[in-house]
Amino acid sequence: MLGTLYGISVGTGDPELITLKGLRILKQSPVVAFPSGVHGKAGMAQTIVEQWLGSGQVQLALTFPYVQDLVILTQAWIAAAEQVWDYLGSGQDVAFACEGDVSFYSTFTYLATVLQELHPECVVQRVPGVCSPLAAASALGTPLTVRDQRLVVLPAIYNVGELETILGWADVVVLMKVSSVYSEVWKVLQQHKLLNQAFVVERATLPEQVIYADLCDRPNLKLPYFSLLIVKVTQRK
Amino acid sequence: MLGTLYGISVGTGDPELITLKGLRILKQSPVVAFPSGVHGKAGMAQTIVEQWLGSGQVQLALTFPYVQDLVILTQAWIAAAEQVWDYLGSGQDVAFACEGDVSFYSTFTYLATVLQELHPECVVQRVPGVCSPLAAASALGTPLTVRDQRLVVLPAIYNVGELETILGWADVVVLMKVSSVYSEVWKVLQQHKLLNQAFVVERATLPEQVIYADLCDRPNLKLPYFSLLIVKVTQRK
Repeated sequence: MLGTLYGISVGTGDPELITLKGLRILKQSPVVAFPSGVHGKAGMAQTIVEQWLGSGQVQLALTFPYVQDLVILTQAWIAAAEQVWDYLGSGQDVAFACEGDVSFYSTFTYLATVLQELHPECVVQRVPGVCSPLAAASALGTPLTVRDQRLVVLPAIYNVGELETILGWADVVVLMKVSSVYSEVWKVLQQHKLLNQAFVVERATLPEQVIYADLCDRPNLKLPYFSLLIVKVTQRK
Repeated sequence: MLGTLYGISVGTGDPELITLKGLRILKQSPVVAFPSGVHGKAGMAQTIVEQWLGSGQVQLALTFPYVQDLVILTQAWIAAAEQVWDYLGSGQDVAFACEGDVSFYSTFTYLATVLQELHPECVVQRVPGVCSPLAAASALGTPLTVRDQRLVVLPAIYNVGELETILGWADVVVLMKVSSVYSEVWKVLQQHKLLNQAFVVERATLPEQVIYADLCDRPNLKLPYFSLLIVKVTQRK
């Protein structure tokens, strides 16, 4: 009998944003895995779930390096997959606590993909949760999308020139992890007269959450990694 | 003292997909509102929350007609807002149970917008939750987006010609409530050789959930209202 790997979406920071299903499976699992923190600090997923863990549960911190080098990354993913497989192979379920939603630009995907390549017989189940654009919209107190609006989500690495084209077409644009390109994005929004229809949310739903609801006077915001920008290109009710 | 209107995201159908925060506020609220069902049947949001409601809580079914006529809709929204205001004005909190996520093409937006226009002093708080594209991705067992993929979400009412353009640019496309245009979409996907990279999920996370993971032989699917289609235009790990 093999154990099951559960990918549990634990939300964006507020520990209350885990779902009942995610919490139930987390509590039932003999092994709970999460991305290891950096500089000796617990990571966000670990911080969210640790209040729920019992003394009988194994806690498994898995290393996912913050680098671009695909060789280093692949080695780390294989090592993490084999650590998880040790438990699955012996019949124990593993719950992986994943920041945000497990299907939305998540670390869990790398783990699950590599695991299924190495051990095609393994069983993976996913529990959906709260993703950062929707957490940010709730924090802003404004809907992300309404009626027939077309939504575009662009991840961290993208071409600022491409943004120009998208602004001519989409109704709502979300730029994930915008910190490294913020100044360039600001100039594009200025040219399109969209600065007062753009919002930045830092660390949505955490106590340190910061909201900028008008970017007109903010060409050079210094933002943390978990920041996103929402542009309401067309204004609708 | 005014009461607060809470928009509680209750997820896509599986009652366990409400968040701890949503459930806490729901249980604390003296008044729980939800969209009324049709043909005497309870609506989805009501079905999800009714197991949690106590006998001391007022249950308020609000009518949101399934019509396009903006005059009829606006009259219904005003009536719903005034029903809610009766409680808020007397100092009682109202929790509105909203299918999916409260900020994502939701009925709650109409209620909150009209209420804030009629009574600008009212206080509205939103609790994010599980939206249908992410629920569908978890059900499919495949991530919605990874790495640098560009995501486009198109709501029910859109131009099929526009889909052609988007398929040339986006990495992942979600078509919400695809039932009324499925056959036209199928032809476009066939021309782009994307039928075996497209997935349909009906009633994600409900017991009646149905998944079609390859559309090649399915030009004429008869789909229910709560169906969405995901196209993975570019295949990545």
